[in-house]
Order: sequence, then structure tokens, then C-alpha cells
Amino acid sequence: MARILYDDLVFIFISLLVLHSICVIAHSREINEKKPCKRFVLHYHDILFNGTNFANATSAASMNKTNLGNFNFGKIVVFDDPMTKDSHLLSPPVARAQGFYFYDTKTKGNAWFAYTLIFNSTEDKGTINIMGADLIGQEPIDLSVVGGTGDFFMTRGIVTFRAEAIEGFDYFRLEMDIKLYECY
Amino acid sequence: MARILYDDLVFIFISLLVLHSICVIAHSREINEKKPCKRFVLHYHDILFNGTNFANATSAASMNKTNLGNFNFGKIVVFDDPMTKDSHLLSPPVARAQGFYFYDTKTKGNAWFAYTLIFNSTEDKGTINIMGADLIGQEPIDLSVVGGTGDFFMTRGIVTFRAEAIEGFDYFRLEMDIKLYECY
Amino acid sequence: MARILYDDLVFIFISLLVLHSICVIAHSREINEKKPCKRFVLHYHDILFNGTNFANATSAASMNKTNLGNFNFGKIVVFDDPMTKDSHLLSPPVARAQGFYFYDTKTKGNAWFAYTLIFNSTEDKGTINIMGADLIGQEPIDLSVVGGTGDFFMTRGIVTFRAEAIEGFDYFRLEMDIKLYECY
Repeated sequence: MARILYDDLVFIFISLLVLHSICVIAHSREINEKKPCKRFVLHYHDILFNGTNFANATSAASMNKTNLGNFNFGKIVVFDDPMTKDSHLLSPPVARAQGFYFYDTKTKGNAWFAYTLIFNSTEDKGTINIMGADLIGQEPIDLSVVGGTGDFFMTRGIVTFRAEAIEGFDYFRLEMDIKLYECY
Repeated sequence: MARILYDDLVFIFISLLVLHSICVIAHSREINEKKPCKRFVLHYHDILFNGTNFANATSAASMNKTNLGNFNFGKIVVFDDPMTKDSHLLSPPVARAQGFYFYDTKTKGNAWFAYTLIFNSTEDKGTINIMGADLIGQEPIDLSVVGGTGDFFMTRGIVTFRAEAIEGFDYFRLEMDIKLYECY
Repeated sequence: MARILYDDLVFIFISLLVLHSICVIAHSREINEKKPCKRFVLHYHDILFNGTNFANATSAASMNKTNLGNFNFGKIVVFDDPMTKDSHLLSPPVARAQGFYFYDTKTKGNAWFAYTLIFNSTEDKGTINIMGADLIGQEPIDLSVVGGTGDFFMTRGIVTFRAEAIEGFDYFRLEMDIKLYECY
């Protein structure tokens, strides 16, 4: 009888260990920085309204800069910008980015963003909500995905910005590397 | 002895299966789109300050529209709006909605919202933080619940908007269907 | 044989109970309001630009108040404010707070905040994204940590505000008690 009990205990102990490992692994997996459950790279094109480019403009300054420094401190820009799969402005957009940014630093061009990526194609339907700081000279420039809807129901993650082009006062382009770590 | 071991193995295997199922179900349940852990519908009343309706106004344009199109592109409105259980403006508010929205589209009246629902009654105390896009003509119009405090500690979820009424320039009403999927 | 089966069942039943408890505890722990996985208190210093204090100013009003009441309703302030470990303005900052707030109440000085805490020291590198309402006269004043990056990868939590000082129109200080409940 003792022998049987001993066998039982060994097996039960091993089964507990195995199950515990499964649980731990299952939890860690959701949150491995190297392994997003979904990832895609899109390009954001911002064409600022300058008073004459009505047809092309996709953003406009709600409020102009204050006099605090020479880096547009306090300038608030509302945008409805196209997102493309490659870096060409005229490529068919796969999503829109609707939201705003403002400049918030005296001595460089840091900006703060909050916006929604809107997908409405046969491939994807839904939205991804993002907020965070676009910090000049910091690597990587990471913002937070704070929620999602539709095909991106309840998602969370990280968006990494990379400045791709700045042309004059009216156009700039950002690469946005979107990494989702919670997918349902 | 072999027989006993075999019995043990069968039982342990079955117990592992059962436990694993429990774990999987427990996890799936938190994130079943059809089954929020809490749900309630409230009505949002926005009365825009027009310069003369001081007593009734609950919101005001911080910045007026830009000239980019005819849909108020760039207009930013700050609000402290009552939330009621039914659709009557004069019903006793069960919460306040404090935050802002702005219009962000050239060719239709899309808006972008970020705000806090504030509960301070015997029934509920705490806040729910929300952000996302109010997209005209898209169904459903879903925004993200990105956090909560007090009775809504650490909550996440979805808020679905439904336009209920627009009266002139100064009043509109939205139904907000609040579905929480993380409740602690 | 019946006896052996009975022993097996007892052990398996007990092991199931134990494992289930472990699972439940593991899950509850992540979300125990009393036990954040990380906690620290910082002090936020806001020096508003008044037109002459260029050297010291760390924030500026993008848009001035509307005429809706006497509590700055609609005034939007963009900031790049130092965060210190003690309450002295001139202590070396351990982080920056970049973002904005606006006043949103007719009859008191409630404000709504959205901002990013930026850490860039040997101790911590990364950002914490925060949004919520600063409600005068409500205790506690809790906002939501909605995401994080770098050393604060994917974090969520609560920030509790406490007003520490208001000096004239241009300076105020807040204690921010940052409690993180999801740490990866």
C-alpha cells in the first residue's frame, strides 16, 4: 500500500509541475517583447494645410505656435492622414490615421500624438487607438497602442516611429512599425 | 503493479485535460466579445456655448474651425456633459463626461474623442477613461475604454456610439453603450 | 483494486484543488489594488509662460480660456515639465512629463490631462502614458496609466494626484503617486 501511495505522489507531483509550466509559458508568451502576435509596417503621410493646398492637404493647425522658443511649442495640428504599405504618397491607402499632434518642447521638435488608425477594407475592419510621445533623437521612438475595435478587438501593443522624410514646412512622412501583443 | 500504474496514468491524464480546459475557458471568458463582464447604456448630452446660453451650455469651442473644408476641420470642443440613463436631457445625471472632441475630416463630420466618465453616486464611484474616433457612416462606431479607477479599477472595454439627435448647431445627443471586458 | 482507485481519486482531487488555487492566486495577484508590482512617487512642476519668463517657463497656453465661466473653461496648456523625486523645483529631474491639460468645468478648476512620462537615465529608460481627469475636491484623484514602453513595456496602472502648491497664476506643483499593476 505504501508503495502505491508513493507512486501516486510521484505522478501527481510530476503532473503538477507540467501543468504549472504550461500555465507559466502560456502567460509569458502573451508578453514576449520579441514576439508580437501581429505586426505590420505602415507609412504615415502628413500634408499640412498652408492656405492654398486645399486639394492635397490632410491636416491643419487648429492653433498656431506660442512664443515659447523656436520649435512650434504649443502648435496643435489635427489630421486625417493616409497610411500606405510602401513609402509612396500616392499608393492606395490601406488605412486612415485620424487624430492630432502638438509640439511641446522649447529646444527641439518633440511632438505628442494621439490618434486612431481606421481600417475599412476586405482585409481588415476596425480601429487601433494610439498615444504617446514622438521624441526627437531618442531610439527607439515608441508609443503605446492602448486599445482596438473590430478585427483589432481589445488589442494592446507598441508603435515604433521612424522619421522618413521632411519636405519643407508642409510635408513629412513617418514609418510606423505596429506591434500588437494582445490579440483576441 | 503495471495495472496500478496504468490506472494512475489514465487518471492523471484525465485530470490534466480537465484542468487545462478550465484554464483555457477561464482565459477565453475574459475576452469573449459577446460577454462583457459589465455593460450599461448611457446618454450623452452636449450643449455648445454660443455666447448667450451660459446657464445651459456644457461645452465650448476652445478653437474654432480652420478653412480646410466645410465640416469644422480643426474645431476643438471642451466639454463637461451630463450622462443620463434615459434620453431626456433633464433627467438626473448619473455621471459626467469631461474631455474634448475635435472635427478632423474635410468631407464629413467625423470627430475624435478623449474623455473621462465620472461616477460619484451611492451606486458607483470612480472613473472610466475613453478614446477613439466617432466615424460618421461606419457601423458600429466603436471607441476604446483604456482604463478605469475606483469601482472601475483597471477596466478595459469598448464604447459603441449611436447618434440620437442633432438639434441646430448647439445640441446633440449620443447613446453610449459601454461594454467592459476586464473587471477586477 | 477499488481501494487503489479510491486513493487515486482522493489524490487527484487534492492536486486539482491545489493547482486551481495556485492559478486563482496567480491571477488575483496581478490585480490586487493594494499590491502594485511597481510604485514610485514623483513631483510635477508646471511653470506657465506669461510672456516674460522665457528661461523658466515649461508650459504655454495653446488656446486661452473661453467665456464659459470663471475657471478657465477651454484653456489648453501644452507642457514639458520636470519631474523630481522630492518637492523642490530645482532638484535634478528624474523624468520629463510631456503632454497637455485643459480646464473643463464652469464652476471649479477641474482639468483633464493626457501626457507621457519620459525616463532617460541609467536607472530607467522608457515611457509611461497617462490620461484622465484631475477632479478638484474628489478623493482620491486617480488617472489611468494606459501603456508604457522600454523598461515600462506594456504597463498599466493608476496615478494618484495630490495638489501640493499653487503660487500665483504661473506655478503649481502636483505629487504623482504612480502605481503599476502590470509589469513585464
